[in-house]
Amino acid sequence: MTSKTTVKTNVGNFFEDFRVGQHLVHAPPRTVTTGEVALYTALFGSRFAVNSSDPFAQALGMPRAPVDSMLVFHLVFGRTVADISLNAIANLGYAGGVFGVPVYPGDTLTSDSRVIGLKANKDGKTGVVYVRSTGVNQHGQTVLDYRRWVMVKKRDLDAAAPETVVPELPASVPVAELHCPYTLAPGRFDTARSGAEFLWDDYTVGERIDHVDGMTIEEAEHMLATRLYQNTAKVHFNQHVEREGRFGKRIVYGGHVISMARALSFNGLANALNVAAIHGGRHSAPSFAGDTIYAWSEILAKDALPGRSDIGALRVRTVATKDRACHDFPGLDATAIDPAVVLDLDYSVLIPRR
Amino acid sequence: MTSKTTVKTNVGNFFEDFRVGQHLVHAPPRTVTTGEVALYTALFGSRFAVNSSDPFAQALGMPRAPVDSMLVFHLVFGRTVADISLNAIANLGYAGGVFGVPVYPGDTLTSDSRVIGLKANKDGKTGVVYVRSTGVNQHGQTVLDYRRWVMVKKRDLDAAAPETVVPELPASVPVAELHCPYTLAPGRFDTARSGAEFLWDDYTVGERIDHVDGMTIEEAEHMLATRLYQNTAKVHFNQHVEREGRFGKRIVYGGHVISMARALSFNGLANALNVAAIHGGRHSAPSFAGDTIYAWSEILAKDALPGRSDIGALRVRTVATKDRACHDFPGLDATAIDPAVVLDLDYSVLIPRR
Amino acid sequence: MTSKTTVKTNVGNFFEDFRVGQHLVHAPPRTVTTGEVALYTALFGSRFAVNSSDPFAQALGMPRAPVDSMLVFHLVFGRTVADISLNAIANLGYAGGVFGVPVYPGDTLTSDSRVIGLKANKDGKTGVVYVRSTGVNQHGQTVLDYRRWVMVKKRDLDAAAPETVVPELPASVPVAELHCPYTLAPGRFDTARSGAEFLWDDYTVGERIDHVDGMTIEEAEHMLATRLYQNTAKVHFNQHVEREGRFGKRIVYGGHVISMARALSFNGLANALNVAAIHGGRHSAPSFAGDTIYAWSEILAKDALPGRSDIGALRVRTVATKDRACHDFPGLDATAIDPAVVLDLDYSVLIPRR
Repeated sequence: MTSKTTVKTNVGNFFEDFRVGQHLVHAPPRTVTTGEVALYTALFGSRFAVNSSDPFAQALGMPRAPVDSMLVFHLVFGRTVADISLNAIANLGYAGGVFGVPVYPGDTLTSDSRVIGLKANKDGKTGVVYVRSTGVNQHGQTVLDYRRWVMVKKRDLDAAAPETVVPELPASVPVAELHCPYTLAPGRFDTARSGAEFLWDDYTVGERIDHVDGMTIEEAEHMLATRLYQNTAKVHFNQHVEREGRFGKRIVYGGHVISMARALSFNGLANALNVAAIHGGRHSAPSFAGDTIYAWSEILAKDALPGRSDIGALRVRTVATKDRACHDFPGLDATAIDPAVVLDLDYSVLIPRR
Repeated sequence: MTSKTTVKTNVGNFFEDFRVGQHLVHAPPRTVTTGEVALYTALFGSRFAVNSSDPFAQALGMPRAPVDSMLVFHLVFGRTVADISLNAIANLGYAGGVFGVPVYPGDTLTSDSRVIGLKANKDGKTGVVYVRSTGVNQHGQTVLDYRRWVMVKKRDLDAAAPETVVPELPASVPVAELHCPYTLAPGRFDTARSGAEFLWDDYTVGERIDHVDGMTIEEAEHMLATRLYQNTAKVHFNQHVEREGRFGKRIVYGGHVISMARALSFNGLANALNVAAIHGGRHSAPSFAGDTIYAWSEILAKDALPGRSDIGALRVRTVATKDRACHDFPGLDATAIDPAVVLDLDYSVLIPRR
Repeated sequence: MTSKTTVKTNVGNFFEDFRVGQHLVHAPPRTVTTGEVALYTALFGSRFAVNSSDPFAQALGMPRAPVDSMLVFHLVFGRTVADISLNAIANLGYAGGVFGVPVYPGDTLTSDSRVIGLKANKDGKTGVVYVRSTGVNQHGQTVLDYRRWVMVKKRDLDAAAPETVVPELPASVPVAELHCPYTLAPGRFDTARSGAEFLWDDYTVGERIDHVDGMTIEEAEHMLATRLYQNTAKVHFNQHVEREGRFGKRIVYGGHVISMARALSFNGLANALNVAAIHGGRHSAPSFAGDTIYAWSEILAKDALPGRSDIGALRVRTVATKDRACHDFPGLDATAIDPAVVLDLDYSVLIPRR
């Protein structure tokens, strides 16, 4: 009888279940609606005008307000969890994340992944799985394409180690690969209604911005968010198990902190219309309910978009901390460990030019 | 002045206010939108593809993704509370619950009930009220029809006992009465995108499935859910009163646990497209914020649907527990009391055949 | 580098930054959807039929269910916070609040304010800022117009005091200025589906209604609500700072209590279709997570609407308390301080006549 149990239940893939080149078809598809958008606003308080207002988005040449980039990320990511990271110990990194066509309410997203690398760990208990995941809409257009690598447990400690394949991971997404979905008539960008006057031209490389505000996480909030994405990773939901675990409590989905940091970054980067690329990122430490998240950013680069004088890209490093204000830029030296830092994200945003 | 108070305020019906044959018109009607659907996803993390994706539902012959069966149940049920169970001590049981036409975002639901039985309790303080409640959409089509019986307080302990009428309650909903809203072309059901390969043919009577995962309830979550349904039962919301009450804390709406169990059951019953009938159910013990809910199921019967070779029914018993994993099927013997069991539900789901 | 920080970040206006006559353009515009409506229902459990059901609203001559008046208020108000009250110590009062055309899902709201008065406080550290704020829809139609005054900190204690201008504030909104968006055929108002039989004719001036129920606030709930409105006032969100503050905890947005009181008032004022005016209001004491809110109301006036025999107005005083039932109308004497009272609101609702 017990054997029947395991037949019907998905216990997730273990390290030895993955093969380089393997194609993973994730379930279920997800139709995104204004319901998801409203809940995302309530969870993070995001104020970016293009996501908040249909007319504002229409003035940028879009049919209506697009879905926030990071909500798209979480929905695409969420689908992959049951197949890739149900038995993961750690989410090690992201690379080469490119956002494609915008997602609008009514669109349906599906996710697929390909295994692009495998490396057994020396401990014999775990290995690193590298995947390239893509989200597409109902027209087959790519909305997101990214790599991530995770440390996954072995089911059978005696399973043979696979041939090591470590994929080449792009250090950054080339500017030419960024998608710019906006059409902006000269002088038409409404900085009064966007919430700040600062455009691409006003930022300088090396500039640092303390996003000032802090926001405390509640258990109900991170669980609502993570379930909204249909992300089923166990550690976020089960206090009965986690109270016996490493931290004695549920761990907040790392993506929750990314969304908090992006929402906080409005104060200083209000005209960053969307995230166009995620070059890399590290969840430096876990976050828990009760933590108050702060963030600061540094402008790493200013990139002109080929053939575009209306919109440019800023490459931004955003650092999020817990229970630590950011006026003095904690974690500035990325090579040193600052225990307050929970996120170090390297990404590009699109922002109107003068 | 005080008397004016009670004139305007609904204090709910007490046992002696009910009459057999009485028709109760519940308020208010409720238009269901994608907003409710998104919030339901966030509250329970449900992953059934037909509810998650418009194209997936369209491949089953539906105009768009239908609303989750249990959200329909809660919305229909929620409307009845102010008239039936505001002064209830216990929800004693359900029987003969049949889901009718699917509900789609944009539909408006109204609920009505008829009192079908009354039985005064020997203690002279309470009685059992049996009702048959129906939910209909804006076209007058039935979306749900079910019986429940509740123990209700008397207002006046001296009120005369009514004639005892105990209605005949169906032990189960006949297979011929199940509604199957799907049109499934042979071989078209997409098990890759539904999340599991197992179809009607793959289940055996007597088979048991541990749904593995556990999910902890937060106060904010069960209150958000219960208010979403406009269910006004006092014990769920008022800590100021409940801290002096029997448990010292708010009681979670029993239906919340049903939805959690149904969402958890995805892992093992991923292709169970909808709940078609609720044959019976028992909230064996109350749940509270902080409890972690687990579930397991047993296949009670496999029923072919008359004239249908594409879809079949599974009669399922799902048991939910609190703070107790289900690998060894707690509560297996339904006649014994297992203190960890909080729900024992007997229902039928529709599931594609090979 | 630090100076660059303050250049990009909005630290909010301080008392000396305001000028009488100044026009403040608030960001961002906000498209309201059924997502916001569903979440609002889940947060407050409101049951007013006109907001709950499209067909019910259509029977009142509307194209579909309008957005709850208080959700409109919070959305218009939320936009103003970053410019007006980021450095506020206290929200001192409201006056002359008039709701205009109804808001429907799909409408986009923008907010603007004009500074109508300034008064430096004797302490030299703060001043009172009086603003008149308006919310308009995408057609430029006013949806809400109200005055409020707040006590705002000075940035520079040596800043010269402005000339004192204290605006004339209307003691109440004249009945002739109330907007009535309903068309009600005689005898067509469905009191069975609205949840109560009591209409305008049934209320008497001086009548008091205990709304009976109590509802406990959770941190996740008030933060979800306040972020839904994109209200960024810091004291609601940052436990890391607030634990060192005056109360040792986050303060609940005062508007949250208004919405709770309005939802509780259904039990006694079920046919109050909408809030048409806010004459005045006082947040008598702060509320915190864990508080249980109760409410009672007094009918202050019955106003016939010019030229209308189908709908009338009730002027209502609603008092909300924390951890204190309202059967004996705490705070009845508005001139005495009752420590349980957290809200004292003077407003008008529209309600069908016989």
